[in-house]
Amino acid sequence: MGYEGFVHPDYAPDTKDLVVAFRVKPAKGVSMQKACENLAGESSVGTWTDVKTMKKGIAEKLSAKVYSIKGEQVKVAYPIDLFEPGNMPQVLSSIAGNIYGMKVLDSLRIEDIYFPPKMDKSFLGPKYGVPGVRKLLRVNDRPLVGTIVKPKVGLDWQNHAQVSYDAWVGGLDLVKDDENLSSQRFNPFEKRVVATLKARDKAEKETGERKMYMPNITAETSEMLRRAEFVKKQGGEYAMIDIITCGWSAVQTVREANQDLNMVLHAHRAMHAALTRNKYHGMSMLAVAKIARLIGVDQLHIGTAVGKMEGGPEEVVSIEKEIEGSFIPADTKHNVLAEDWGHIRPVLAVASGGLHPGMVPKLVKLMGKDVVIQMGGGVHGHPKGTRKGAEAARAAVEAASEGVALNEAAKKNKALAEAIGLWGVLK
Amino acid sequence: MGYEGFVHPDYAPDTKDLVVAFRVKPAKGVSMQKACENLAGESSVGTWTDVKTMKKGIAEKLSAKVYSIKGEQVKVAYPIDLFEPGNMPQVLSSIAGNIYGMKVLDSLRIEDIYFPPKMDKSFLGPKYGVPGVRKLLRVNDRPLVGTIVKPKVGLDWQNHAQVSYDAWVGGLDLVKDDENLSSQRFNPFEKRVVATLKARDKAEKETGERKMYMPNITAETSEMLRRAEFVKKQGGEYAMIDIITCGWSAVQTVREANQDLNMVLHAHRAMHAALTRNKYHGMSMLAVAKIARLIGVDQLHIGTAVGKMEGGPEEVVSIEKEIEGSFIPADTKHNVLAEDWGHIRPVLAVASGGLHPGMVPKLVKLMGKDVVIQMGGGVHGHPKGTRKGAEAARAAVEAASEGVALNEAAKKNKALAEAIGLWGVLK
Repeated sequence: MGYEGFVHPDYAPDTKDLVVAFRVKPAKGVSMQKACENLAGESSVGTWTDVKTMKKGIAEKLSAKVYSIKGEQVKVAYPIDLFEPGNMPQVLSSIAGNIYGMKVLDSLRIEDIYFPPKMDKSFLGPKYGVPGVRKLLRVNDRPLVGTIVKPKVGLDWQNHAQVSYDAWVGGLDLVKDDENLSSQRFNPFEKRVVATLKARDKAEKETGERKMYMPNITAETSEMLRRAEFVKKQGGEYAMIDIITCGWSAVQTVREANQDLNMVLHAHRAMHAALTRNKYHGMSMLAVAKIARLIGVDQLHIGTAVGKMEGGPEEVVSIEKEIEGSFIPADTKHNVLAEDWGHIRPVLAVASGGLHPGMVPKLVKLMGKDVVIQMGGGVHGHPKGTRKGAEAARAAVEAASEGVALNEAAKKNKALAEAIGLWGVLK
Repeated sequence: MGYEGFVHPDYAPDTKDLVVAFRVKPAKGVSMQKACENLAGESSVGTWTDVKTMKKGIAEKLSAKVYSIKGEQVKVAYPIDLFEPGNMPQVLSSIAGNIYGMKVLDSLRIEDIYFPPKMDKSFLGPKYGVPGVRKLLRVNDRPLVGTIVKPKVGLDWQNHAQVSYDAWVGGLDLVKDDENLSSQRFNPFEKRVVATLKARDKAEKETGERKMYMPNITAETSEMLRRAEFVKKQGGEYAMIDIITCGWSAVQTVREANQDLNMVLHAHRAMHAALTRNKYHGMSMLAVAKIARLIGVDQLHIGTAVGKMEGGPEEVVSIEKEIEGSFIPADTKHNVLAEDWGHIRPVLAVASGGLHPGMVPKLVKLMGKDVVIQMGGGVHGHPKGTRKGAEAARAAVEAASEGVALNEAAKKNKALAEAIGLWGVLK
């Protein structure tokens, strides 16, 4: 068969197929038909030439089928038997493997992946997700609000704990490490966790509120598990992972260990944009987010729509709906497939990157209340420091949740007024 | 400091710095200077606004320094203390993390990473590499030659073993699974490994040569380790991993376990081109290959220069030199940094993807003898089937190694003549 026989315009995929929505640009001089034949062949049972070892029935049973070509939008149905249940790297080696490098293609982007029920059942999904996190934090009526300890790196563990304490008592629910802080000489992981959880206990006692610390356990897999267990033993509830730089095998390993560990897994997406930013090549953040939900992180950075990182409001809101919803309708314009998440719990969306209190009303209007709003510079850059910055952040989130205008709220809260004075209000 | 103070044209990096060679395109209306300030700030100690929590000395000690801007080529020196030794995900979360998504950049590509001696020492590097693999195979004077069982997926384990046997007795050294075959219902991992290693034993006995099987262990980390151990117990010497879809945490974990397992680690790069193909965004295959060498795979797919996958001769040869050499000189034209690999062993380059016997002379001329030449369709697509295809492949490799013209060699080898008759000879 070589690379022929993979285009079937009359085929109607069913819920036994895994479906991929691609954006395809054939190489110069290559027809879309040929590009699609190569794409579907290489990602299922084909290769560049006929092979004598092909057995009867294999092509019929396991061939990928290109069933829709509309402009650059191409949809391919993959028989579920092509895949090993519960093995995300294998799924990606099939549908997102060699094909990115084929000479017949100029560029290739995975815009969405439909995971059929059988595939959903082979992954755990989030242990806690939106309802679990809310229950743990005892916050139901507003977005959660947190900070990233700043500077990103360089503080020692005592100062790290002190900054965290200030943020919590100022009013924040959550404090996290930055994505590039793991266990460096100036701030070793274990010393930091012990000191910061002690500060958390103090803050909880003083405020009467639940406070959580999200330490970054990013490392080689065994070390990551050891760090998660250490946090658990010290009384921590959260573990944060840089899911892209760690990779899917390790994320699956941590999630499986989490059946016993019972921690909330916070997923940072550092490096995602190397893969997701180009609209013609790589993979959409939506597809990355679906993979993360299926494997089972509880919280996921999906962009801010308004901050320092790329990703417009439309894209960010569509990703939020995908990870927090149950049934997602198809969106033909954006090459988004329908999805039924079945038993897989919703992941709590995290907005982080260049945010400050003046952006909160617009952010809440766009993303709703089921979101973690994280401000780093937007808290520690407050003219009066972290504690007042946290107070301003919390006040902004409460005002936005209650529908009170930020300038009104600022009249009753000096810290918020000072934040607005420095950074303004985003219209 | 916000995002200011990170450009130092007079700074001279030393061997204590980790250096990254970027290709930078600022967003419309943003100066190169500003783009670089943001880039170096966000990937070290900066954020978008001044923070009150900055302590004395941190910026001096841990700031990244942009020391060279030449057109789009930007070089940044990172103090080694920014990084956790032996933690590749953390290194990438720093130098290849948030920065890809910054609005001030239009696109960003990591073209090379210089790893200083202190970083080299914190990773294991290959256990075997070129000399170890040659010793194991007892082949010193020619490229190794192997095949991928085809069709990619669909054969059951008995047929998989039979095709492997045919390839070995036909003359091949190595047989590997395809990147999307792990443990599917039609061909479960353990049954395949047992049957195929039995076939290998038979082939070794009949030919008097060493024969190796490279089973694809790609999975969640613990399962991957379990599979590697299973292969070892069954008498296998190799484990193959799809390093990009598995991710660096898991690759590190397998490499660390390999201190006791003592297996040859074969790295497939499926999905790399999602990251490496665009010349303006993502990461070069050269940088990916350096990461893989540092962590310690023994063999790595780097492209073919002549087959079905993108990657021209110049690029592929430069990657081969980087993974097989000891001291790599800087190549200013291609934004390649000098590197001293110190104690880190050389990785054996693998050429695979659309190859057939008629391409071998040109391939060997380009890549030399320290290479694994893999032909999938180019063996199993032979008019007389796998065994004759393997014979042709081996004959082509021997001819090319001895400097005998392929058409001359074909006069004495009917299988080779038939292969050339079908696919021709690449000029």
